[in-house]
Amino acid sequence: MTEAAHGQHGYISSKDDHLKRLRRIEGQARGLQRMVEDEKYCIDILTQVSAMTKALQSVALGLLDEHLSHCVVRAAAEGGHEAEIKIQEASEAIARLVRS
Amino acid sequence: MTEAAHGQHGYISSKDDHLKRLRRIEGQARGLQRMVEDEKYCIDILTQVSAMTKALQSVALGLLDEHLSHCVVRAAAEGGHEAEIKIQEASEAIARLVRS
Amino acid sequence: MTEAAHGQHGYISSKDDHLKRLRRIEGQARGLQRMVEDEKYCIDILTQVSAMTKALQSVALGLLDEHLSHCVVRAAAEGGHEAEIKIQEASEAIARLVRS
Amino acid sequence: MTEAAHGQHGYISSKDDHLKRLRRIEGQARGLQRMVEDEKYCIDILTQVSAMTKALQSVALGLLDEHLSHCVVRAAAEGGHEAEIKIQEASEAIARLVRS
Repeated sequence: MTEAAHGQHGYISSKDDHLKRLRRIEGQARGLQRMVEDEKYCIDILTQVSAMTKALQSVALGLLDEHLSHCVVRAAAEGGHEAEIKIQEASEAIARLVRS
Repeated sequence: MTEAAHGQHGYISSKDDHLKRLRRIEGQARGLQRMVEDEKYCIDILTQVSAMTKALQSVALGLLDEHLSHCVVRAAAEGGHEAEIKIQEASEAIARLVRS
Repeated sequence: MTEAAHGQHGYISSKDDHLKRLRRIEGQARGLQRMVEDEKYCIDILTQVSAMTKALQSVALGLLDEHLSHCVVRAAAEGGHEAEIKIQEASEAIARLVRS
Repeated sequence: MTEAAHGQHGYISSKDDHLKRLRRIEGQARGLQRMVEDEKYCIDILTQVSAMTKALQSVALGLLDEHLSHCVVRAAAEGGHEAEIKIQEASEAIARLVRS
């Protein structure tokens, strides 16, 4: 993959950070399975689910911020139809996040 | 207000639509007061609160989409520090929406 | 209205508090209309929408807590099919809140 | 484990179902890592994050429903301070879910 191609995706600059957060989230998913296996108290499981949901949201907000800063800004600078498509795509992704 | 000043805010093009939605939301807030006054069934009140929350989210997503399409695209086209500020501002607003 | 009728709805004990919060929310809906009328900055409007959404959520969570403490506890104490119905109704209301 | 011990946690009846869902969620977390590794398009990653958040919410709502149907109903039937504690605990867990 070329430098230019790399540049297409804003999140690459903090790829390691995203991977670290996602590995931690994978660990939380495994921790939840252990809690259910061990029949832990339901409220304690729910507390962990809320923490995991917040962690996922943080990853999403980080990715989105980078996407806006890189892809969207670049498309906007070039202007035209491509800029419109990028904005619409971003708006739809934001709507999915807000509604999930 | 001049044309240029109007142009600063992306949502102006659909100002009437936003006002109509917000008036309906104000009506929902009054309807909820009547339901509480009349001691309606709690679950029915909660159903109305959920509908009102969704209506508010739609207004927010509409405003945000226009903000990205106009202000952010314009700042990005101009480039530089102003573009960065606009993106950061937008990201923070999105984070508040996702977390609320 | 009789004591018994009052007793049907858990939220009656804090009716005034709910009405006060809902009047404030109605005021926020009017404030948002003024902001759009006056063509205020989009990000500032979004900040107000987030605050209003949080205020609505607090009303919902307050109503739900009282509903659980009163209606659901009473139905559960009586047992049988009515208890099941109340729990299902509450679960569905919670799902609507979580997803909105 | 005795019947009584099983009875303590409402979610035990559908333990296998919860475990299956959580394993799928763990798989989604691994899938997201692969997408970031492979530098997939940001918007596609965000779509997966939204799907995973919804899957997590479904697990939470399922656990909560069972908790209300079993633990809370049982405590309510017994009445007294324990019922109050269970309701408060449940309300706090619901608030965390609604706000996350």
